[in-house]
Amino acid sequence: MKVKEIMDKEFIYVSQDQSIEEVSIIMENRKKFTTPVVDDQMRLVGWITSLNVTRGLREGKQKISEVMHSTDNIVHVHENNPARMAVLETSHHKLVSIPVLDNEGVVVGVVRSFDIVETLSELYDIKVYKIFKAMEHELKGISWEELMEASAIVTRRRTGEMVTAEEYEHRIKDSTFGEAIWVTGGLEKFFVGLIAIGQLVLAKKIARARK
Amino acid sequence: MKVKEIMDKEFIYVSQDQSIEEVSIIMENRKKFTTPVVDDQMRLVGWITSLNVTRGLREGKQKISEVMHSTDNIVHVHENNPARMAVLETSHHKLVSIPVLDNEGVVVGVVRSFDIVETLSELYDIKVYKIFKAMEHELKGISWEELMEASAIVTRRRTGEMVTAEEYEHRIKDSTFGEAIWVTGGLEKFFVGLIAIGQLVLAKKIARARK
Repeated sequence: MKVKEIMDKEFIYVSQDQSIEEVSIIMENRKKFTTPVVDDQMRLVGWITSLNVTRGLREGKQKISEVMHSTDNIVHVHENNPARMAVLETSHHKLVSIPVLDNEGVVVGVVRSFDIVETLSELYDIKVYKIFKAMEHELKGISWEELMEASAIVTRRRTGEMVTAEEYEHRIKDSTFGEAIWVTGGLEKFFVGLIAIGQLVLAKKIARARK
Repeated sequence: MKVKEIMDKEFIYVSQDQSIEEVSIIMENRKKFTTPVVDDQMRLVGWITSLNVTRGLREGKQKISEVMHSTDNIVHVHENNPARMAVLETSHHKLVSIPVLDNEGVVVGVVRSFDIVETLSELYDIKVYKIFKAMEHELKGISWEELMEASAIVTRRRTGEMVTAEEYEHRIKDSTFGEAIWVTGGLEKFFVGLIAIGQLVLAKKIARARK
């Protein structure tokens, strides 16, 4: 996934000659805490946050150029960078948004931290049930009932909890991947549990074929 | 994981009688786009964003109470809610931060979208190599070389890419789980690939045992 797939293309932008008052109204109306400052070719020349605007208003400054961050100090990403880079820059610098540039330095989008939250949480909000359905499909010749039975056996062995196949099925219908990795104690443990289940059902399948 | 484990406890707060000018200086100095408004018991009575502040300054308003959002309109979470709830509220309402309350309505923290980005991305930043090491440990009697060979075979079958076992090993040493699910096209596909690899090495193990 690239930066351009997660960026907001409906961003606002302003010029350095605009008045701070005018820009403050645009930002309030569009509910944006930040905006790129561009030249007439849409190239990035500055960056404004609403905190620069409050300072400008309070100190009686007039133009955006008087309060903007200059390009040297702006954290930005390229549209073809991996999306992960936008994630790292945002969390590392604790930013609410960063501008996205193309090869000519033209602003083509803005990545916002809540858009990243949305993308990451979607990845993470997959039902465990769907992972098991994919597993059933991949492990040809194994029934859903066998898969649930094996899952209950592995869970009993690992946790000591006396869960039945039916209870296991019910549980994975409600839970998400995000919850599951917290419950099992981490991503590796979650995967190892799944591998153990896969191993058990495959052993059964082979034993059945030999009969 | 609960909300209280991901919230910022070093948050700023203001009272509704403070002047907008004074609050604007606090927010600029502490680089906060939002702040809870509290009473003398630290109970939430309002919420201010820097955009409310710019409007207040522009329109010559004096007190925070004149520009703040009232409690009815504030999205908040409880400190004991699952962290997932803060994630969903932030992305659903496109907020940069939300206040965290305890049972008495006292503000005990603030969850910020870039903190969520950090938590989520750490979760995904586990090396794929570690998942394969866990898999090797779980699939007793299978060597690391067999596992890499099977992985290269499954990758060639699925993507047509002529990758060797050595190249595959090199690749997983560098890549994280987060990258892998983006490259493979999602969590289910990533996991199905692992199951296919597990299936292949187990088939080899059984074939070897029969010789």
